[in-house]
Amino acid sequence: MESQISIEELLKRAEIRDNERIDDLDCNGFCIIQNPSCFCFGMDAVLLANFAAGRPNMKVIDLGTGTGVIPLLMCAKGKGAAFTGLEIQEDMADMAMRSVRLNNAADRINIVGGDINNIRSLFSPGSFDMVTSNPPYIKETGGLTNPNGALNIARHEIKVNLEGVIGAAAYLLNSGGSFNMVHKPFRLPEIFEVMKSFRMEPKRVQLVQPYADKEPNMVLIEAVKGARPFCKILPTLVVYEKSGGYTKRLLDYYGMNKEVRD
Amino acid sequence: MESQISIEELLKRAEIRDNERIDDLDCNGFCIIQNPSCFCFGMDAVLLANFAAGRPNMKVIDLGTGTGVIPLLMCAKGKGAAFTGLEIQEDMADMAMRSVRLNNAADRINIVGGDINNIRSLFSPGSFDMVTSNPPYIKETGGLTNPNGALNIARHEIKVNLEGVIGAAAYLLNSGGSFNMVHKPFRLPEIFEVMKSFRMEPKRVQLVQPYADKEPNMVLIEAVKGARPFCKILPTLVVYEKSGGYTKRLLDYYGMNKEVRD
Repeated sequence: MESQISIEELLKRAEIRDNERIDDLDCNGFCIIQNPSCFCFGMDAVLLANFAAGRPNMKVIDLGTGTGVIPLLMCAKGKGAAFTGLEIQEDMADMAMRSVRLNNAADRINIVGGDINNIRSLFSPGSFDMVTSNPPYIKETGGLTNPNGALNIARHEIKVNLEGVIGAAAYLLNSGGSFNMVHKPFRLPEIFEVMKSFRMEPKRVQLVQPYADKEPNMVLIEAVKGARPFCKILPTLVVYEKSGGYTKRLLDYYGMNKEVRD
Repeated sequence: MESQISIEELLKRAEIRDNERIDDLDCNGFCIIQNPSCFCFGMDAVLLANFAAGRPNMKVIDLGTGTGVIPLLMCAKGKGAAFTGLEIQEDMADMAMRSVRLNNAADRINIVGGDINNIRSLFSPGSFDMVTSNPPYIKETGGLTNPNGALNIARHEIKVNLEGVIGAAAYLLNSGGSFNMVHKPFRLPEIFEVMKSFRMEPKRVQLVQPYADKEPNMVLIEAVKGARPFCKILPTLVVYEKSGGYTKRLLDYYGMNKEVRD
């Protein structure tokens, strides 16, 4: 559908700003506004949107949505009926809202400006079926020269930490509700411990390795609120072939034979 | 060395019993007495002995040693100076003791008959540098028809559970001591939680998959007493090639080009 509209028309409709660009999400014609000088989505977001088993009738919220890439991808895949993206940075939330309008998805995706740590004043308990999050991965140790930079806020636990994200997910879900997160493997024991402390039982886990013989650099985790302990560990996902190209699975995720950004 | 001794001489020296046999461990001439009607070691023991980074000067104890396969393999590899194998089943402990004599290893391996749950009356706290264990994997739910069978005791948590094994390891190690365990991936969140509750920090983890596209069926874990949280996750170990043969890594583990038992 979108392919019949000219780039000039898209730019106008999106009210695009300086340094911003529009990228094709390679998924049912959806696209996204990004600012390369600020933050562009990575493979982690693509993998999370594929991993989360959202169903067409679900109410889904993404915590720390940034440019809204995860709700946009999940909406494009039909993995939910109504999406909310919560984002603390005003300029990022604004960019996400314009992306939603650009995709004519305002009836399905709602971007909310706000702090994950204030979740109780923003939403009712148990008001979502699924929570997703691609949170900051790195513990904040106070050594950052620019703790207000968008990239640092996205990568470091400046505005919210692991307990904050998982606690908010536990608050937003009813028993049986599913929380899907991408994170760094080196924090896996801590992630499991914090999840269990909030009665969020890890039920499905997948490691992601760049190559078959390299250490994993991402982990995808689904925790289910109040579930009994039994964790299905999926076959490790390998991103690149030895030859350097994407593996078949990854080509499927990105939309086969398309150029990818990562 | 052992290859110069006839089978008849080995059988006599080992005081072999009915239904027992002697198997070559394919490692520096070491062999092991096993009773196929009772319990034979599997790939999990071989992988654990390879995974555990024992050094030649270490005091190492194996909890629930069975036929003593892990101390025998680690002794053969030079991964320790003095090994203890603790085993609750008298007939298994006796078989392990005869295997130790058969290998002329009584000066390096000591088999102790006893219960992991009585660890405090058997050994002093912090008296080992490394603990290994291939414990029973399955929670005991009371439905077993033969809870005294050797195979059931090895596989089900009848005599000892996860808390018992990890608690004993924590007792036997000083700060910085290493505990190495093989277990089932579906229990990984619980394993991490119990380890952390005993200040045993998971530091090194490796999933084991039968094939590149199949779910892992084993997990190797090293926890270090009192260490800071940071867990290195190794590349997933794949056992078989698509064609059905062992992968190169596994051939190395077993002693290249030898017939294997699993």
